[in-house]
Order: sequence, then structure tokens, then C-alpha cells
Amino acid sequence: MGEHAADDRIDGARLWTDLMRLGEITEPDLPYTRRSFSTKFLEGREWLAGRFRDAGLAVRIDEGGNLIGRRAGCSPDAATIMLGSHSDSVPGGGRFDGIAGVLAGLEVARALRDAGVALEHALEVVDFLAEEPSEFGLSCIGSRAMAGALEEDQLEQQRPGGEKLREAMRRVGGAPERLGAACRDDVLAFLELHIEQGPVLEARGLDVGIVTAIVGITRLELHLVGEAAHAGTAPMSGRRDAAVAAAEIVVAIRDLARACDACGEGYFVATAGVIDVRPNAVNVVPGEARLVIDARCESASLMKRFIDELHSRAAGIAAASAIELAGFRVLSDNDPAGCDPDLQQILLESAAALGRSAMSMASGAGHDAAFVSRVAPAAMIFVPCLGGRSHCPQEWSEPSQLAAGTEVMLEAVLRIDRGVRSVNGSGR
Amino acid sequence: MGEHAADDRIDGARLWTDLMRLGEITEPDLPYTRRSFSTKFLEGREWLAGRFRDAGLAVRIDEGGNLIGRRAGCSPDAATIMLGSHSDSVPGGGRFDGIAGVLAGLEVARALRDAGVALEHALEVVDFLAEEPSEFGLSCIGSRAMAGALEEDQLEQQRPGGEKLREAMRRVGGAPERLGAACRDDVLAFLELHIEQGPVLEARGLDVGIVTAIVGITRLELHLVGEAAHAGTAPMSGRRDAAVAAAEIVVAIRDLARACDACGEGYFVATAGVIDVRPNAVNVVPGEARLVIDARCESASLMKRFIDELHSRAAGIAAASAIELAGFRVLSDNDPAGCDPDLQQILLESAAALGRSAMSMASGAGHDAAFVSRVAPAAMIFVPCLGGRSHCPQEWSEPSQLAAGTEVMLEAVLRIDRGVRSVNGSGR
Repeated sequence: MGEHAADDRIDGARLWTDLMRLGEITEPDLPYTRRSFSTKFLEGREWLAGRFRDAGLAVRIDEGGNLIGRRAGCSPDAATIMLGSHSDSVPGGGRFDGIAGVLAGLEVARALRDAGVALEHALEVVDFLAEEPSEFGLSCIGSRAMAGALEEDQLEQQRPGGEKLREAMRRVGGAPERLGAACRDDVLAFLELHIEQGPVLEARGLDVGIVTAIVGITRLELHLVGEAAHAGTAPMSGRRDAAVAAAEIVVAIRDLARACDACGEGYFVATAGVIDVRPNAVNVVPGEARLVIDARCESASLMKRFIDELHSRAAGIAAASAIELAGFRVLSDNDPAGCDPDLQQILLESAAALGRSAMSMASGAGHDAAFVSRVAPAAMIFVPCLGGRSHCPQEWSEPSQLAAGTEVMLEAVLRIDRGVRSVNGSGR
Repeated sequence: MGEHAADDRIDGARLWTDLMRLGEITEPDLPYTRRSFSTKFLEGREWLAGRFRDAGLAVRIDEGGNLIGRRAGCSPDAATIMLGSHSDSVPGGGRFDGIAGVLAGLEVARALRDAGVALEHALEVVDFLAEEPSEFGLSCIGSRAMAGALEEDQLEQQRPGGEKLREAMRRVGGAPERLGAACRDDVLAFLELHIEQGPVLEARGLDVGIVTAIVGITRLELHLVGEAAHAGTAPMSGRRDAAVAAAEIVVAIRDLARACDACGEGYFVATAGVIDVRPNAVNVVPGEARLVIDARCESASLMKRFIDELHSRAAGIAAASAIELAGFRVLSDNDPAGCDPDLQQILLESAAALGRSAMSMASGAGHDAAFVSRVAPAAMIFVPCLGGRSHCPQEWSEPSQLAAGTEVMLEAVLRIDRGVRSVNGSGR
């Protein structure tokens, strides 16, 4: 693959060094932690802003609190090609989720500078604010702002201690009172590189995944009320054991999710991640149980069918055991976000041109690209990660895997800039 | 039923008044609570000792910390007829569990005195120490001591704060350094009246249940280890979801317990009362699950078959989902305790003689009688309770129901004293 000129433009070692350096900026007792709005987060951003400047980028923080490095284009009126992800982490997370996408964008900017390539379009590298749920319990704050989707009531949310989100945004350099100015209509294309956070690319030995859609996420809460009773004196025949009904529903969720995934309408997963039984005492027949379910799907119509069918099965299971299905409630519901078909095509062609193996795949995790896709064509490049592990200190991608994904992004930027997109994208 | 002389001997109103009065001695913010070794427990015992004395009983606390009121018999060498239960409660418990049995014994002693009946045998009324698991986590402390079954290492157990059980027993008047003296070999018969704590007598409209056996209780802990994964990015097909395997096992426990109960070898119940899932987060496929199971049975051999079959099914379920059955462990294991057949017969005949409806039934709960049965013939009388509820403030039996059970006990005491037992009991 050394014959491709693009291979030489990305400096994989430089990218890796930056990644490891940013990983060192962590809460010392809980690596790797750089939660949004924290001192460590701001320290990381200061370092990052310095690296942006070193790369010749003009640095600013927009009204939504996003750190943006901009490289001017040759045509002052041309739209912007935007690359980015986020530099914040979950508590005890890894060094790649989000961070890899910001530094890959930076490396593309540096490669262009080093190669003396001037683009027609401006290029921006973005570190979106607070992609992970911060202490405010809200994810994708910066990309919501960029999409005009950050609401006034969300700005009023408080974190433990009482600080409001609008105050915290101001503290990190945002301007929540002028949030509309963060909303962008000048973006020609947005590309986000990210570790897959799943096992598929590694298992298949592929270099990159080109994301078809970012799944919609629906969270459901089920509440079952039976009757608590003495575990010794309540005969089996008359019991109203809420935990047994909950267990039957957990099995039904697994079976139903497998069926949805197999039905040919795209990626589907569902998880009963929270199971709370009351009183959860060894000698008491459980009187109540609560399940919180996370379901993710590329198709809004398939999600609706899943929810309806689950409701029907749960009601049937409850009724058969004289249990009350006291609650079946949607806690949150995000629509799936499709990636731009033309950008997907450019990414697949870029990978092919570089001799990189690729597959199309859905993203089961949420990303800033989902919000950006509301205001601009957006697409994503996944790179393999070890064992699919993420949100843990063991999170890992090889330097060569990150470099390969970054090369594909660089190649795609060049093609987008040259207008390949407008040739293929007439139907959009 | 007014034609039976015995009806007039029990003063149901007096019994009820005592019951309500003792119920008033409770932690004020958590009725009804009188945990062993607490100030309220000692206050209750002081009141109880006074009532014992008022009834003409000689009061002492034995080496095991049991409060005993004794009425001498006519034959100084005759063995003792013992009645009793316990006055301690669970936190937020009721006014009947245990307490009814102590006060029913007291009422029998008062009725004998009021009627001027002198028994050949001595009569003792016992308030056993700490039948409920106290802060020491051990149940039936006083009856264990009376059976010679309270071990040295148990005396070393500490409660939060550091007090050892031996110190606490001394504090309430016991003498743990001379525990052997608490062990009894002079008991002709032990009878314990108790609320059923289950729904059977009420549902069938019966006056009393005559207990055939106190179930053995086996507690099992199952530990399942799968692999925690991102709920969005881990495809359904490759998951190792420990909670789904746990759910399948919970359903299997229910099915297996129903089959054991139906197999004709006596009462059987099993409950998965504790279900802990880790990390119990909505967006993480559960990597670990722990179940604690309570199984109760009259037959030690049926219990063994249940445990073996459960192990086999759990291993099969785990293997089918690539989950490791990392633990399958017996936490505790008490053998069933059969009630004395002759005493059961006397109780059934006493009920019949009084025109009281009765059935034979197992006790699904543990009781002091189980330990006493190791050193003396023991039997139990159950009275109905509202909705089978127990260990809660709503625990309830009607005054007439308690009086009826106490009458049966009095009648049985008279028959035992007259030697009816020795006539029928030659085969023992």
C-alpha cells in the first residue's frame, strides 16, 4: 500500500503521540477521566487549542462551547468542510472515544499544511462540547447547539452543586445567550472518525467501517407490581412474584430483539440493563420489579413495532401471573440519523483508492454526527478497536488502525474539496 | 361451642389486651419494632416479666437469655410442659409474630390458675431470645441455646459497633459462659402457637393448623459472569449477557419449584428473592449477575433433588449463552424438623373436642420449635392471619382467632398432663 501517495501524508506517529499526550491529562485517581466542564477538561482543551495553533489553525470557541480550529480556503465564499468529535470522556473511560476523531481531524489539517495543499473550502476541526452525559445528564451539548437543538429548558438544568448548564457553558467560553449564532448553515460536509466501540471490524479484519446511520435510541421503563410475601409461607400456587414476571420479560426482550435484528430492516439491539427488584431480600417473594430497557435501531418504524410487540408480550406475561403492569413508559426517544449517501460513497471510494478494506455498518452508539446531520451532510468513519471495548481504561486501537482511518478521511476531504461530491450528489 | 367448658377458661379479651399493650412498646418511628438486645426489647421484657409474675409464675432468665415463667407441678419429679415463642420483632414488623405465642402461653397459665387447676407437671412459659435475625445476623439464639446448638464461634459474632453476641447475651441476663446449663432434658412436651404467616387457613376458613414439620431452609447463591459490553454496539448475536441468563434461571427456579411442590413429597417453595445485576446501567449489557435463592421443604431428600436439578439447569442455561456459572454455593442449610406425631395427634383431638376446625400443614417459616424439637417432643398450633401477611405493620389476627388457638393449646396441655400422650405415644 506504500504506492499510494496519501499514505505518506498522514503522520501516524504524530497522531499517536498527541493521543497519548492528551490521555495523560486525566483525573489521577481514575484514568482516563476528563469530564466536560471539569478542570482537567479545560486543561485538555488548553493543550488542544495550542496544538490547533501549532498546526496553523485559527482557534475560537463558538457560542455552543465548541472548540474550533479553522483553516481558510481559497474561495472565501465556499462552504466549510468540517471534521471533528469530542475530547471529553466518561468517568474511568478510555483514551480514544471522541479524542481520536478530534486528533484525526487535526492530523488531516497538518498533513494538508505539510504537503502544501490549499483547499478551495475552509476546513474546520471541532472539539464538540460535552458529547458524553456530563454532570448535567445531557449528551451532545455542543453538537446540539450547532444544530439549533439545544433548548432553553436544557440550559436551565443544574448539576450537583447547583450550577446551571448556561452558567457552565459560559465558564468554558460559550455564549448561551447568543446560542443561535452557533447554528451552522455553511457546512458542505461533516466527517467524524471514531473507534467502532463494537467487535465487528476487528472480527472481520477490516480497516474501516463507513457508517450508514446512527441508530435511534429509545429507553423504556417497565414497572411490575405483584405482592410481596413471606418466601416460606406463600405457597407456589398463589404467588404474585414480580421478579419472575420481570425475568420472563427480560427473556422476551432478548428473543424479540433477535427477531427484529434478523428481519432485514437493519441493525437492531435491545438490552435490559437495569433490573431492580424490591425488596431484594432473600426471604421475601419480590413484590415489585423495575426494568429499564435500551433499544437501538436504524429504522423508526421497526422501533415502533418492537415497542408495540414488547408492550403486548409484557402485558401477557404480567396477566398470566396476576401481576400489574403498572408502568410502561418511554423515558427518552431519539430518531435514527441517516448518514449522507453521497458522503458514504465518497468514503467507500476513498478507502478503495487507498487499498483499505471497508464495510458499511450502522453505528449502535450515539455521536455528535447525529446532531450535525440535521444541518449538514454528515458521515462517519469507524476504526477497529480491541475486543469492541469502550468506556473503560482498556479501550484500544492500534496506531496503524488510527492512521488508516485518518488517511481515508484525508482522501475524502480532498475528493469533497475537488467537488467529487457535487458530481455524484446531484440527486440530493 | 359455648357448651365446651374449655371455652370459658381462656379469657380472649385479656389475651388481646396484653397483645395490644406489648405492641405499644415499639420504636416510635418504625412501628412495630422491638429488636432483640435493644432498649425497647428490654422494656418489653420487663413488662412481660411483670405479667408473668402477676400470673403467679416464678420468673427467671436462663443461661441462653430466655425469659421463663414457671408454675410448679404437683409431682416434683415430673417433666415440664413448655409453651412459648418470642417477643422480639423484625424492623417494621407486626404485633403477632412470636408475641402471640408467648402471650397465649401466659393466658393458658392464667386460665389454669383462675380455674384452680393444678397440673401434675410443671408448666413453663418461655420468651425465647432473638428468634428473628438480630443485628448479629443469627436467628433463634435462645432456642439454639436450649437445644445445645449455640456454638462458640456464634458467640463471637459481632454486631455493628463491635459488641459480641456473648456480651449482648450477658447484658440481657444470660450466662453464655455456662451455656450448657440452658440445655434442657426435662421437657415432656413443647407447644408453640404462632400466626400462620401464610394464606391457607384464612382461605379455607379453618380455626387452626396443626404443624407436621417445620421446613428445612436452604439458601443458595448463584454467580454468573458474562461480558459487559456497550448496549448499542454489541450485536445481539455475540452477546454474553449475564442478566438474560439469570432471568432464564429465575424462570427455571419457579418451574422447578412448582414441579417439586406437585410431586407429592410435601410442601415445597423456592424463591429468587435477591437479583443483583452489574453494572445495572441502562446502556451497558450486564456482565455479571447474582441470585440468592431461598428453598424450603419438608423433605431433605426432595431438597437435595431440587438443588441437583437446579444446578444442572443453571449450568445448561449458562453454557447455552457462553456465560460462566462462576458460583453455585450453599450459603446455609437447615434440615427440616418434624413435629412430634403424638403431640400432633393430641392437638388434632383437642381441636375436635372443642369443635374447632383444623388441618395438618407444614410450616414454611422457621420457628423456635424447630430447635426445641432436638431435645423434646415439640409441636405447633397455627392460627389464621389476615391475607397471610406478616413481618409488616399490617400483620393481623382477630381476637377470636387467637382465643380459639389458645383454647386448643389449653386443652392439649390438660390432655398431656393427664397422660393421654403416654397412652398414645408408646411407639415413640
